[in-house]
Amino acid sequence: MLLLHLSDLDEAGWAERLRAALGDYPVVRRGDRFDPAAIRYLLVWKPKPDAFEGLDNLELVLSIGAGVDALLKHPGLPDVPLIRFVDEDLTQRMTDYVVAQVTMHHRLHSRFQADQKARRWSQLYPPAASETCVGIMGLGVLGQDAARRLVPLGFAVRAWSRTPKAVDGVEAFVGAEQFDDFLAGTDILVNLLPLTPETAGILNMETFRKLRRGKLDGGPAIVNAARGGHQREADIVTALGDGTLGAASLDVFETEPLPADSPLWDTANCYLTPHIAAISNPQTGATYFSQVIADHEAGKPLRNVVDRGRGY
Amino acid sequence: MLLLHLSDLDEAGWAERLRAALGDYPVVRRGDRFDPAAIRYLLVWKPKPDAFEGLDNLELVLSIGAGVDALLKHPGLPDVPLIRFVDEDLTQRMTDYVVAQVTMHHRLHSRFQADQKARRWSQLYPPAASETCVGIMGLGVLGQDAARRLVPLGFAVRAWSRTPKAVDGVEAFVGAEQFDDFLAGTDILVNLLPLTPETAGILNMETFRKLRRGKLDGGPAIVNAARGGHQREADIVTALGDGTLGAASLDVFETEPLPADSPLWDTANCYLTPHIAAISNPQTGATYFSQVIADHEAGKPLRNVVDRGRGY
Repeated sequence: MLLLHLSDLDEAGWAERLRAALGDYPVVRRGDRFDPAAIRYLLVWKPKPDAFEGLDNLELVLSIGAGVDALLKHPGLPDVPLIRFVDEDLTQRMTDYVVAQVTMHHRLHSRFQADQKARRWSQLYPPAASETCVGIMGLGVLGQDAARRLVPLGFAVRAWSRTPKAVDGVEAFVGAEQFDDFLAGTDILVNLLPLTPETAGILNMETFRKLRRGKLDGGPAIVNAARGGHQREADIVTALGDGTLGAASLDVFETEPLPADSPLWDTANCYLTPHIAAISNPQTGATYFSQVIADHEAGKPLRNVVDRGRGY
Repeated sequence: MLLLHLSDLDEAGWAERLRAALGDYPVVRRGDRFDPAAIRYLLVWKPKPDAFEGLDNLELVLSIGAGVDALLKHPGLPDVPLIRFVDEDLTQRMTDYVVAQVTMHHRLHSRFQADQKARRWSQLYPPAASETCVGIMGLGVLGQDAARRLVPLGFAVRAWSRTPKAVDGVEAFVGAEQFDDFLAGTDILVNLLPLTPETAGILNMETFRKLRRGKLDGGPAIVNAARGGHQREADIVTALGDGTLGAASLDVFETEPLPADSPLWDTANCYLTPHIAAISNPQTGATYFSQVIADHEAGKPLRNVVDRGRGY
């Protein structure tokens, strides 16, 4: 039996699609009557404190989010395999966001918006894409897809990851010892890292100061599409104010929803979106998770199992 | 002998690079002493009224601009072949601009900027790129390049041109009789047409009303990277005001520089840049035009000759 525990999401919609995808296999929701001991699979998003109580025969926990940082902190999480959601639709939407923000900063949107506001006709030719380097932190499914779409646009693309990974046309930097070299050639920094103790707060003033200066009028830019825990928001406000950064696009925040008194709201050249870069699609999600269950029932090896040691 | 007549451009820089590229072949500028009858090639940008006077032995006119609409209106233009500038660097920069504007509108930049200004956290998930149709008007070198870079980003791409042209992954619409069908499926309209009597004013209210509605929150968007003569600015202001359009990106204007009293400056969701989408690069330009001259001297057939009948 599959139990759905989806907070802040259309749980009914997910249930309907999963029932259609799973055929005879029973799917229940939290309000339904069922025997907790009969639950073998739990599909979860933002679990409540008692989410895992009584589920003594759980075989797999299925995470509807691509990132599992919050789930791993749940004190009730049982010691069974935890499966991440990896999905083409979610990946495409995330890349849509990243490409839109990167190209906006490359084309000096902030500068021309300021000119427009001042009714100022002041010609300045942005550098060609080939003269502009996009540095991607994180080279998992999301980072690789963003890189693969930015390379054909003509950008110089480099990436930084924990372990060596090869993507065509992308200059690879690995580990803590190559982080500074990676930053030193980056004009637009894109964060697609998993949130772990090692990556928390990585978007801070020290990082910003190491980015390349002089290529983009106004200063280097950052794009955070991963987790609010990656960024030091006070540092972003300071860096945009003193010119260390020229612009920033943030889809995630230390506290969400972003509090009304956050200085980010009216920080110049800071472009905010309310954690909408990508969403887990119930249609493709039902296909994915029904396949995970079918594979597991058939005794096949599991894919996208979270390594709890590394945190993703 | 090659004469340079470049207004509002770095003529000295062009002269230097052309001399380097042409070797022994003589290059002169307007202020220099030379016999007008010795001039066989004229490289021109924004020619003055007397630009062609006395040049009785001219063999080719070389246009530094990709568009020749203004040049064709010059009353002194002699009846010799006119060569357009076609250049990878210029094409790349134009596509950089187009992709940045298209992706910005696709990701509902206007809506999220309004929310940010109001300190409003309001989640809305933009459609996936595959659900969004970019319609490109004009399928010359620039239109084809834009299409080729937008297709791999996942967008549905369609194009409208005077004569049939095939680009992989692009739905083709041809001629006046297919214009309405083309518009009816377009969410983001990109103009890369040459300016001719047939295309002048094509970005008008009637066109805007025929675009697809309902896919992009706020309404369809337009991007004009071609010529100000393509657009009716009063219609754009009205269309953005009454919701016929959701957003517009304009790099060109009916009058340039855009007059300080133009209502476009503070029209909501209208993103202006001061004709900087692309510039003719002296480095690649010197290579191109020196090759044109070398080919002509060697009796080879000329490429990129303007057809004065069609106007490009």
